[in-house]
Amino acid sequence: MFSQTDFVHMERALVLAARGMYTTDPNPRVGCVIVKDGEVIGEGFTQPAGQDHAEIRALKDARARGHELRGATVYVTLEPCSHFGRTPPCANALIEAKVGRVVAAMEDPNPLVSGRGLSMLRDAGIEVRCELLANEAREMNIGFVSRMTRKRPWVRMKVAASLDGRTGLPSGESQWITGEAARADGHAWRARASAILTGIGTIREDNPHMTVRAVETPRQPKRVLIDSRLDVPPEAHILAGAPTLIFCGNLDEQLEQRAIALRDRGAEIVPLVNENGKVDLPRVLIELAERGVNELHVEAGYKLNGSLLREGCVDELLVYLAPSLLGSDSMSMFNLVAPASLDERLHLEYQSVDRIGSDIRILARLVPPLPLH
Amino acid sequence: MFSQTDFVHMERALVLAARGMYTTDPNPRVGCVIVKDGEVIGEGFTQPAGQDHAEIRALKDARARGHELRGATVYVTLEPCSHFGRTPPCANALIEAKVGRVVAAMEDPNPLVSGRGLSMLRDAGIEVRCELLANEAREMNIGFVSRMTRKRPWVRMKVAASLDGRTGLPSGESQWITGEAARADGHAWRARASAILTGIGTIREDNPHMTVRAVETPRQPKRVLIDSRLDVPPEAHILAGAPTLIFCGNLDEQLEQRAIALRDRGAEIVPLVNENGKVDLPRVLIELAERGVNELHVEAGYKLNGSLLREGCVDELLVYLAPSLLGSDSMSMFNLVAPASLDERLHLEYQSVDRIGSDIRILARLVPPLPLH
Repeated sequence: MFSQTDFVHMERALVLAARGMYTTDPNPRVGCVIVKDGEVIGEGFTQPAGQDHAEIRALKDARARGHELRGATVYVTLEPCSHFGRTPPCANALIEAKVGRVVAAMEDPNPLVSGRGLSMLRDAGIEVRCELLANEAREMNIGFVSRMTRKRPWVRMKVAASLDGRTGLPSGESQWITGEAARADGHAWRARASAILTGIGTIREDNPHMTVRAVETPRQPKRVLIDSRLDVPPEAHILAGAPTLIFCGNLDEQLEQRAIALRDRGAEIVPLVNENGKVDLPRVLIELAERGVNELHVEAGYKLNGSLLREGCVDELLVYLAPSLLGSDSMSMFNLVAPASLDERLHLEYQSVDRIGSDIRILARLVPPLPLH
Repeated sequence: MFSQTDFVHMERALVLAARGMYTTDPNPRVGCVIVKDGEVIGEGFTQPAGQDHAEIRALKDARARGHELRGATVYVTLEPCSHFGRTPPCANALIEAKVGRVVAAMEDPNPLVSGRGLSMLRDAGIEVRCELLANEAREMNIGFVSRMTRKRPWVRMKVAASLDGRTGLPSGESQWITGEAARADGHAWRARASAILTGIGTIREDNPHMTVRAVETPRQPKRVLIDSRLDVPPEAHILAGAPTLIFCGNLDEQLEQRAIALRDRGAEIVPLVNENGKVDLPRVLIELAERGVNELHVEAGYKLNGSLLREGCVDELLVYLAPSLLGSDSMSMFNLVAPASLDERLHLEYQSVDRIGSDIRILARLVPPLPLH
């Protein structure tokens, strides 16, 4: 069904898509390659929101190079859009350019599109093929797919631990367990996320900025704090710069006072409580999806990590294991009660295992996963 | 200094050496390739103790194939021996065969040899070269090198844990955390060891046989038990079959009674106490080296694992990480008190990281290591 040439061009389109890894948010990362008479005549990838999608960039690129688009083949890592969003529909632009064939890696999971873009192209007499390197394309936009189909972000929880699974000494000392290469790698994962979530415990222990510094990015992820009693000090680093979103418990009088000081620092305060009076974590995810969060990067402590896992709010673990042992009285990764039997343990599936500097990086997904479709 | 051809033949000699992985004990695993006029005319590897060394096998192989050995080049992964042990010296046999050149991967760390074999060859007018693929050759016989140079075995501690570093539920349930492929891989590591060491805690929990079953081997490692009060029941699986070596505390009257019952089951009882009245683990290692143990494979529980680490009795960790989480109240890998600061933590160096079935296998060495030379 697909030729070797089709694969080569779609692989290239995926490489282009990855160039938007840190910038397209909340839009998906899409790449596009236009080929005519065996020659690549145009390339593009999605620009920051409100600017050109990948197809438009590739069409412009081809025209700028003086190429005629009639009859060309367009490889695109996601179905061209069919709706007017911040930009006009890409399907229209391809039809107007009279291209001959469109190969898409996957359908757009956006319910406003999901097949309509491809139908428009077919109706215009263009040959359309879909599902070439679909898995790779889906992985590239796993957060966008999650938000569109599950109405919640893809949640990736980062943990840095010693080989015996400990994240810090009993004293709280945890900087640094992993090496510089792993920390830089961790910042690359932050950079691709729409938002970074942490808890008040981590603010108290480490007072982190929760910004991307070790890799270059023109866009900082949103910062999200779970802080049921609004205990975060107004001078905390996480409040500096762009507005931080704070989820908390019901605003009694004391919390109202604290909220005022925090709003002065630019924070947005969202009370969101469950029946136990705690912050309702599953509803936090829904709320974040509504605000356009595709990938949510979690860097929290023992307690919040455990709560998120227990409440089914985690899709994958990003674990860095340092070549050291911290001992059995040191801090655990997650506050998680053992199951009654091994059959009931939390199951994972290893997605990748790599060496990063002197550390090991493990990407593991919870199974069974919350279905994406 | 060495040609491409030299590398090729020594690589082959290392492959041959590996064929003795489970059988040469307590001798080193050695491979030998004899080349004449660019043609491989003989190959061999060390046979079980008391039988032919690699060089003798290769000489016999060449002769059996009708080749003349005069002027041939001999590649051997360890310096040919110069002393009469259970077999006559290999250096003599090579001299008598009038070979022209001998390339050895490394000197024999055995103080009875250590250079004398090569000197004998040189004195006989044979061209001699050493240190080709020396690291690979040393790794192949790391236990033999350890016993010869440090008077203690190379100690490899196996741990099977979940990704959060837990080896069993609070109830003790631990079978099985890792998958079948990892368990078979673990048996291959058992098979190459001279001895398998465990503690009374593991006997109580799991009553293991501590034999090699999942891989084929003509030789079972010795079994060694640390059991200060001789609490092992005479019907325990570990006592079945070949004699088990039990290290214990001082033999008071009660222990004498127990020792009698255990000796009836073929066990050898060795009291070996330190100043705290516990089994003296460093001296256990010395004792085992004196009994010809090269690689010691440890499969023990939380307590004994911790004691061995604390007392500097571990050279490397063989860790299998299963794709699951067992929770923070589950069993830890080692009973090990956290250091006062991160600077004082136990440092490791990752030797290899591999996926074995659905699990991850990590080989990590303690650093700084106890020097081998």
